[in-house]
Order: sequence, then structure tokens, then C-alpha cells
Amino acid sequence: MRVSATSLTNRQWRLAARPHGLPVLSDWEFTEEAVPSPGEGEFVVRVLYISLDPAMRGWMNAGRSYVPPVGVGEVMRALGAGEVIESRHPAFAVGNHVTGTFGVQAYALSDGSGVHRVSTDSAPLTLYLSVLGMTGLTAYFGLLDIGKPVAGETVVVSGAAGAVGMVVGQIAKIKGCRVVGIAGGADKCRFIVEELGFDAAIDYKSEDVRVALRDQCPDRINVYFDNVGGDVLDAALTRLARHARIVICGSVSQYNNEGPARGPANYMALLVDRARMEGFLVFDFTARYAEAGSEMAGWIADGRLRSLEHVVTGLEAFPDTLLKLFRGENFGKLILGIEDQA
Amino acid sequence: MRVSATSLTNRQWRLAARPHGLPVLSDWEFTEEAVPSPGEGEFVVRVLYISLDPAMRGWMNAGRSYVPPVGVGEVMRALGAGEVIESRHPAFAVGNHVTGTFGVQAYALSDGSGVHRVSTDSAPLTLYLSVLGMTGLTAYFGLLDIGKPVAGETVVVSGAAGAVGMVVGQIAKIKGCRVVGIAGGADKCRFIVEELGFDAAIDYKSEDVRVALRDQCPDRINVYFDNVGGDVLDAALTRLARHARIVICGSVSQYNNEGPARGPANYMALLVDRARMEGFLVFDFTARYAEAGSEMAGWIADGRLRSLEHVVTGLEAFPDTLLKLFRGENFGKLILGIEDQA
Repeated sequence: MRVSATSLTNRQWRLAARPHGLPVLSDWEFTEEAVPSPGEGEFVVRVLYISLDPAMRGWMNAGRSYVPPVGVGEVMRALGAGEVIESRHPAFAVGNHVTGTFGVQAYALSDGSGVHRVSTDSAPLTLYLSVLGMTGLTAYFGLLDIGKPVAGETVVVSGAAGAVGMVVGQIAKIKGCRVVGIAGGADKCRFIVEELGFDAAIDYKSEDVRVALRDQCPDRINVYFDNVGGDVLDAALTRLARHARIVICGSVSQYNNEGPARGPANYMALLVDRARMEGFLVFDFTARYAEAGSEMAGWIADGRLRSLEHVVTGLEAFPDTLLKLFRGENFGKLILGIEDQA
Repeated sequence: MRVSATSLTNRQWRLAARPHGLPVLSDWEFTEEAVPSPGEGEFVVRVLYISLDPAMRGWMNAGRSYVPPVGVGEVMRALGAGEVIESRHPAFAVGNHVTGTFGVQAYALSDGSGVHRVSTDSAPLTLYLSVLGMTGLTAYFGLLDIGKPVAGETVVVSGAAGAVGMVVGQIAKIKGCRVVGIAGGADKCRFIVEELGFDAAIDYKSEDVRVALRDQCPDRINVYFDNVGGDVLDAALTRLARHARIVICGSVSQYNNEGPARGPANYMALLVDRARMEGFLVFDFTARYAEAGSEMAGWIADGRLRSLEHVVTGLEAFPDTLLKLFRGENFGKLILGIEDQA
């Protein structure tokens, strides 16, 4: 497809106000504007899929974090995947499929920074926002480099049917661990055990997580990979093995608090059990993305690593679809698909 | 001095009830009984000094911890130092000075488990409950093995004029770090800077710790050694350097809560700053006690490591003296001295 980008209209979701608690519609502004022409060294991407991630909620807040906040009035930051439709950049040709931080919009102008070309011959484009993208890399480095699981150990992961959690559990199985996933609802629990091969699942909506961890982790927990914070983190802290590692990847239960986050009341278990709680950011592992991606592609090819993408279609659905992450309504990697656009 | 132990009366503080919040007098029972005669392989210690430690509050609670709780009706557990007055043990002779877990009592019967002979030729006996005892070893291994400070880094320690904190700060100075101590009150702050050589002190009672840490840690915090928890831990979390290490040694501000401890609300700083929070117990380093003790004795000998002991005399003063730890009324290592006894 060859299109002159300048004849196209872009559609965008911009941050209109910093939310208090769960984002509401008035925190967003929907704008339309002409797609800009690429200058020398630039190209235009037609965005096909947008990655929806809990971390986006943090980017909406003012204050110091690992990236600057999205400015009020700016297009909301998001990872995405799409196709180059016009290019004046030597490394990106029209028709190339690419991933990058394209924002919540239908078209993105790029100079190539942080953009990767990907092949749709071997994998669908959505997989590059899931297992073969930042999500998968986050699971890979967080589990292996921070959690350092050893075969035979017990690994527990929360948000286990979510984008990162489902990959963490599968990699832990590949590494020979006993894997227990914590997820919300019978369907998710069935999925991670029956489809993904977890050893056990705990439904935090219908079970007492603390009691269930006692039952499901007879040798206690060696690695706890936390995506949720709150009560579930506190429950995990009561069941640590000596020298346990807690990987702090997210705290989705706390992102929409109007007040401060609730810290883990049981953190002194770190002393009792000589354990460690450590945070990480996938961006620190850039030099090893290729190595990790190729190892994961191998696991996918031989059927040991599966992905589930939950695609909701329609750019206009963005504000509501994002909330699925905080309501626990996503099943696997949540992706916004942009309908075919002229 | 040669005494037949059996002619002596022991005096003891026993746990009468599990406290709710700060221990009150009715949580204790004062008992007297004859000092038992040592059997074969046993000896009797006249306890001269009892170590008072915040950890004792934890030992009074039911529930899982790193040691079993003190049973209701039992003599309260405590480290102490004293002199062997009667012995049927080949390794401990009458007149030997010893340290061990002798309990809050005037005399202790021992089989030698966990008891160390110490020399009062080179150091007063109280020093073996302070810098040359568990307190010093806790500071040494916690700082060096868990905190892993590097010369030029910034080390912050809370409870800085307390038993462990004062040693942590001095060792960090020896290792070439910038050292900031957090303590309560002008006297303690003056002491750690003027007498112990800390680079700066923050008075948590009169300063906004978060603001003060910003001022005193221009390069942020590489190692935070926490003895207190609560607000001070949360403040430190706002000022971490990338890859910071938080050493969890205690949480004295939380030990007497009637409800659960307050967890660190700012714990997601671990992710933002790729930092780690780790607990430890000195008992795991038993194999290296001698090595550490000899290094610290060298630092004491050459004047680089100083100790301050705060001795309160009188076994009967135990219940109230213990509370000094939780009221911030101790200055250096708090020790209960037992008056000369027949």
C-alpha cells in the first residue's frame, strides 16, 4: 500500500487532565489533525495495534518516575506496532513492520529512535507486543535475572493470566520450577493450569490467598514475582522460603489509589526469612534483548511458550479498554486494534 | 570469688502475658528461686550485664519468627555477659568471663551452648555486648554483606545514635563513604557528627526527613540501613540512587503497634530506582564472627571505631528500662547492669 501520509487524518487520544483515581473520560481528549509529512530521516507509521499496559497509569501522574510523565495536552504514550507507509529514513522502507513507542494514535511520525523492524513471516504482528515484545522481555529478565529461579524451587506469580504473568509462569516451568499462579476468577485459573501448564492456580477472588499459598506451596516460596501489590503481596510475604527473592514488577492494585499506595505490612518477613525484594526495569537490559528474544522465539517454535492476546478493536474504545487492566477484565495481553483505515 | 551457687537466690523477670502495644508492668512477673546446682557439663554464670535490644519486643509475640517466641511464664530471653561462679564443664572455669543468651536474671545455668569466653584484659565486659558483641556483628555483616557500600557512595543509617546504627555509620566512614545519620534530638545528632565522625545528621524530631535527605544526599542514597521503619523508611525511599540497597535490620517504630505494621508506602521506588530491600540475621554469619570481631577490635585499637554504652543499673529496673528503646531514650548501646550481689 502506498499512501501519501499528508492526505490522511490522524486521530489521537491526548491526556486532558491528570486523573484522580481511575481515569475518567474527561481526563482524555480526542483530537484529529493532518498526518505530518516526514522530513529527512523520518517516516510515518500506520499504527495497527496499541499495547495497553498497567504502567500507562503511572505515566499519567506528575512526579518523578523512571520516565517523565506524559504532559497534559500530549498524545498519550503507548507502545505499538504498525506498518511504514511513507519514509525518508534509510533504514525503514514502506511496507516494513515496526514496533515502537508510537502513542495512542492512528499514525505516528518517527525518526527511528526506539523503533524495531519485525517480521510477520514467522509470527503475527500482535506477538511483538506480547511474548516477543517488551511484555515478554519484562517477564524474561525480571524472572531470570532478578528472581534467579533454580530448578526444583517454587515460583509464585500474581497477575498470572495477565500479559507478563503468563510468560513468567511458563518460563519458570521451562526452568524446572513448581509454578503457582494467582489470578482472578475460575476461567483464568483454569487457563493457566490447563492451557499454560502451571502446577496450580489460586483464585484471589474466591480464595483466602494466604491459606491457599500454604496449601499450594508446601516448601514455601522461593521466587515471588509481583504484578499486583496490596493484599496479595502481603499474603505472599507470609509464605517465603529462606533467602526468597521477590521481584517487584508492578502494583496494579494500587495504581488508582487516590491516596498513597498501601505498603506491604508484612515486609519484616524479609528479615525473618533473609529475603530480598527488588525492582527492575526492562530498559536496563537493552543490550540483551536480541538474545532473550531469540531464546523465547525458540520456546514458541517448539510449543513450550504460548501467548494469548486479548484484542479490542477501535481507537475510540481506548479510554474504556484501558480500564479493563484495572478491573481485571483482560485475559492475556491486552491490545487495542485499530480498524482498517483509509 | 568462689561461691556455692546453691546457696544463692536467683532473681528473674518472666513474661507473664503477651503485650498489646508497649509492654506494661503486668506483662512481667518478678520471681525468686534458688540458683540450681550445675550438673555434669554445666556451669553457673553470675550475670553482670544484660543487653537490651529492640528485637526483644518481637520475641514477646506469639507467631512465626526467626526464633520461637518466649513462652508465657518463662524467663525473658536476653543476651548477657557475666562470670562463671561454679562449673562442671571442662571448657568453662570459675572466673571466666562469658557472653551468651543468659536471660533477664541474676544467675544462669548453662551447658555452654552459644556461650563465648571473652577477655576483659583488652576491653571492658560491656563492650562484648556492644561493638564486640552481636550488636557490632549485626552492623558489620548487615552493612558490608547486605549493603555492600563502595567508597565514595552515600550511606544513610536510621537509629544512628543507637547500638547498631552508631557502628554502621563508623564502619561506613572507615570504608570511605559519605555517611548521614538519622537520630532523634540535637544531642544525638551532635554526638554522631562530632564524636563519631558522621558527615551529617538529621534530627527526625525537628526536621522534615524527606527534605533533609534531599539536602544532605546530593548524590542520593546508595545504601540505606534501616533500624526504624515507618515514616523514616518511607522518606529514604524517595531519595534512592539507582541500584540502591536497603538493609532491613529492624523496624523499632512499628514493634509496639497494636495493629499490623505500617508497610513502606513508597516501596515502588524499588522499581523506579532498580533498588533492592533485603533482610538479614546475624546468626547466618556465625562462621565469620571471629574474622569480623578481630577486624573490629583492630579498628577499636587504632581509634577508628568507638562505642558508647548506656548502662542503667538494677535488675528491678528492667521493665521500664526496656521501654527506653521504644521511646528513643537510649544513647548508644542500652545495657542493664546488675548491682553487686552476694
